[in-house]
Amino acid sequence: MSEKRVILSLDITDEPSALRLAEQLEGEIFAIKIGLASIIVNGGKYIRDMSSYAKVICDFKSADIPKTNAQIAQKALEYNAWGIIVQAFTGKDAIKASVDVSDRLKVFSLVSMTHEGASYFIDKHVEEMAKISIEAGVYGIVAPGNRPETLAKVRKLVGEKKIISPGIGVQGGDPITAIKNGSDYVIIGRTIYESKDPLGTVKEINRAISAVIR
Amino acid sequence: MSEKRVILSLDITDEPSALRLAEQLEGEIFAIKIGLASIIVNGGKYIRDMSSYAKVICDFKSADIPKTNAQIAQKALEYNAWGIIVQAFTGKDAIKASVDVSDRLKVFSLVSMTHEGASYFIDKHVEEMAKISIEAGVYGIVAPGNRPETLAKVRKLVGEKKIISPGIGVQGGDPITAIKNGSDYVIIGRTIYESKDPLGTVKEINRAISAVIR
Repeated sequence: MSEKRVILSLDITDEPSALRLAEQLEGEIFAIKIGLASIIVNGGKYIRDMSSYAKVICDFKSADIPKTNAQIAQKALEYNAWGIIVQAFTGKDAIKASVDVSDRLKVFSLVSMTHEGASYFIDKHVEEMAKISIEAGVYGIVAPGNRPETLAKVRKLVGEKKIISPGIGVQGGDPITAIKNGSDYVIIGRTIYESKDPLGTVKEINRAISAVIR
Repeated sequence: MSEKRVILSLDITDEPSALRLAEQLEGEIFAIKIGLASIIVNGGKYIRDMSSYAKVICDFKSADIPKTNAQIAQKALEYNAWGIIVQAFTGKDAIKASVDVSDRLKVFSLVSMTHEGASYFIDKHVEEMAKISIEAGVYGIVAPGNRPETLAKVRKLVGEKKIISPGIGVQGGDPITAIKNGSDYVIIGRTIYESKDPLGTVKEINRAISAVIR
């Protein structure tokens, strides 16, 4: 069985529903990405509970000073997070502070985003942000699955680093195009959890991806 | 009695200690600023518990797509936050999504930071970020209390908007210089909560500020 390439973006805050879904998809997804809203509602134990079923990536988009970024990463790790997403625009020291917390926590650095507002500042610094992310020692990079050209550019910039990509499904991207343009893992939310048959949907995506990565 | 000008930055995650401090300082501070690490450890109820003693500003530095920024702001409000801090870097739509959640939630937009890494990208866009923050309808702005020139520049850019300033005390800034350069409220953490007499320390700062804002 090949490694799974789908990261479930679990943007629902009701823990019982989230846990049922996680249990149902166990073994068919690479990881579960959870956000800050779920933590406000459920506290850090939400991370630990989810980690029974899959690796958990905390999508906090940490964008704080180094000391605080480190504190956030440390707490995520204590609750059994596997990975954490941080913003690159707060600079190399802020990224590195998260990386330095522990080898056991994979840090993914965000160098591009999928919304309109990214055009103000973020789009102007993609290359520099990729560069300082590598220098800071991140495990992986977040780059948009619904912007194939940007994604392909980031792939060239970051060598063998793992790339995870949001913007798939309801947001317009498709997993095959993303994988072909350099994603290692595609982040999919509503397409899965709003499906009448989440497990069937994931299995179908897995089969489609397997056919192209062979 | 004049309005208090100190915002307590409560970066400790132990809720009983935090609550004791909040109770002790009730009436002597303008607000309490809390961070993500405390929420991971204690959940959103930490916001509600603290709000018994002072206005609570959630310093999440939200830096997500509009939909997710809105979801985070909504949850903060549900747990009785008075304000929330968002990054301006993610663009006008992302800021506005937080503003649009409710008139009852004050949004403060971050246009400058106090750490070294701010020199990579953030320092290059202070003016534009101030501009789009105003356009997005924020209640206030976050600008560094330990960088008087930047602070004075931001004050000119944002007119009558409220400015709250970190970087005071252990981080090098002093409250009087910050107020003189345009801060409405100074954010102070360790100087207060690591003091042997937190209440005395706050009262002393309040007296010093009163003397200059008369």
